[in-house]
Amino acid sequence: MKARKIASVIGCRLRRFYCTRMQAIHFNGNELHAVSRRRPRPRRGEAVVRVNLAGICSTDLEIAKGYMEFTGIPGHEFIGTVVSSPVERLVGSRVVGEINVPCGTCSLCRRGLEKHCASRSVLGISGRDGAFAEYLTLPAANLHEVPPEVSDEEAVFTEPLAAACEIPERAGIDSGSTVAVLGDGRLAAQVLAMKARNVTVFGISAAKLAVIRKFGVCSRDASETARFVKRFDVVVECTGSPEGLPAAVELVTPRGTIVLKSTCAGKLAWNTAGIVIDEVTIVGSRCGPFDAALRLLERKEVKVRKLLTAVYTFEKWREAFKHARRRESFKVCIRMS
Amino acid sequence: MKARKIASVIGCRLRRFYCTRMQAIHFNGNELHAVSRRRPRPRRGEAVVRVNLAGICSTDLEIAKGYMEFTGIPGHEFIGTVVSSPVERLVGSRVVGEINVPCGTCSLCRRGLEKHCASRSVLGISGRDGAFAEYLTLPAANLHEVPPEVSDEEAVFTEPLAAACEIPERAGIDSGSTVAVLGDGRLAAQVLAMKARNVTVFGISAAKLAVIRKFGVCSRDASETARFVKRFDVVVECTGSPEGLPAAVELVTPRGTIVLKSTCAGKLAWNTAGIVIDEVTIVGSRCGPFDAALRLLERKEVKVRKLLTAVYTFEKWREAFKHARRRESFKVCIRMS
Repeated sequence: MKARKIASVIGCRLRRFYCTRMQAIHFNGNELHAVSRRRPRPRRGEAVVRVNLAGICSTDLEIAKGYMEFTGIPGHEFIGTVVSSPVERLVGSRVVGEINVPCGTCSLCRRGLEKHCASRSVLGISGRDGAFAEYLTLPAANLHEVPPEVSDEEAVFTEPLAAACEIPERAGIDSGSTVAVLGDGRLAAQVLAMKARNVTVFGISAAKLAVIRKFGVCSRDASETARFVKRFDVVVECTGSPEGLPAAVELVTPRGTIVLKSTCAGKLAWNTAGIVIDEVTIVGSRCGPFDAALRLLERKEVKVRKLLTAVYTFEKWREAFKHARRRESFKVCIRMS
Repeated sequence: MKARKIASVIGCRLRRFYCTRMQAIHFNGNELHAVSRRRPRPRRGEAVVRVNLAGICSTDLEIAKGYMEFTGIPGHEFIGTVVSSPVERLVGSRVVGEINVPCGTCSLCRRGLEKHCASRSVLGISGRDGAFAEYLTLPAANLHEVPPEVSDEEAVFTEPLAAACEIPERAGIDSGSTVAVLGDGRLAAQVLAMKARNVTVFGISAAKLAVIRKFGVCSRDASETARFVKRFDVVVECTGSPEGLPAAVELVTPRGTIVLKSTCAGKLAWNTAGIVIDEVTIVGSRCGPFDAALRLLERKEVKVRKLLTAVYTFEKWREAFKHARRRESFKVCIRMS
């Protein structure tokens, strides 16, 4: 009888132990590795989200090279289901989440620049564990419900699509603008083509360029840029490489605008005189409006399904990262739960 | 009798030879040296200007390091007197001159972007001999008459002052903006202080900073910038050094604006992620309106006399360049004729 009771207590504790654990991918400053971790506990105002799908972004690949000196669980593109939330109606909902968590009280927050709050944490990028885990926490205010018309495989594109939606606003694009997209701007290209008639994507993967062409957007091999020096009113730099900005300065017309998107761990020595001589404007652009992105996905105005290169199970996360690094990959996701 | 005639012919030819010659400072790709050259002949639409004073600009110092791969007579800041001109009323006038000579027919010229014409020449910088000579040629349309209230020593500042006048336009500065000027922005500081209440100049020469303070503009040693990280709405970069842009990115507030002025021969490896993360705007700015600059000089609204460090005779041009390179020098000029 006593032995049975002891076994029951041990079983109960083991169950409790395992119920509060989760599997995750962790970056220790040197390499990524799979870990078993205690599930995150929500702080005041935060919801707990069980992650369904998490997308691997080029920022994650840069983090694995040391970008932002981040250590912890990376990942910031996700779709999940709310497990607990201070906002009752969210519990059980499918959600995506804005990645910046501001203090809400500093002068930047008060000026409406919460995304730039100096003491913010950023999901899977800075000071906050991210989406390559079974569970994550975010303030309930950061979450957006996903309409039923939008599948998990579409919704996982919300964060990068929101960032793409910001580009036309920042660059002041109109229908007559000539626009070049440098690099893997498959979402940017579609959003920009809705605003401007003349959009050209320059890429290095023939397979990717063929897909972009199917969206009705002109695409060319990056080796052809020499023929287009100073030809574009707006150049959107999404190369994910330090070489991208000097290449954009070559392509943009005098008094034109470059939208800089790439955040890289690397450095490149180059001469910036061209920016002054041609009186170019460079606009850094990072995040964008989730509402607008979800509307585009709901109305199927942006096609993302063809951009989902592969979905891996958690056990195959190493293959997933390897696949994401391949030149021809668009978006590789990991099914977290 | 015959001998006298021969002597007279020789004398006449010698006179004609010397009358068509001028002294100038030439850059051969390696070094500056004094030369005797044939006076420039005006092309269609061009005036001939006898140069009174020519200012040494940091661009000239960069040209002497190989910037723009220019060879010829440098110098683009000048005040002179018109010797001949297709516009009759200009002959005998004191003039300053816009430095870009466009084709007038290409698509950029037709769009009003003549200063960016791809086939333009630029006085003393690209494809056209400049102002470190007794005579120069420029299209009559490039010349601006100098009001009698403006002395030669003031008028020689017109070109850099015009460039400074462009900065508030490009950066969208208003009276509430907090503005930093990095480097030798003694003209920019004065122009900006007319638009914004809060202007701070960061420099490396105590003597220069003291002069700037006398204009009623706050000035600080560049070593103090660490205390002002992300504090300025607008940062104007006039350091003349490749280190200037990364330093400006450190100082500007998220969503703030950097006006980039420096054109250098050098390169610097740095990480541009800060531009994206803080969604900073960088605006290259090169030339500005001569009319506005002459108006400011005429009304004595910008004080330039204290910025004239020294005037050298042509014979002492080497000392002039040496003096211009000194950290504490504002503007060093050469009297050309």
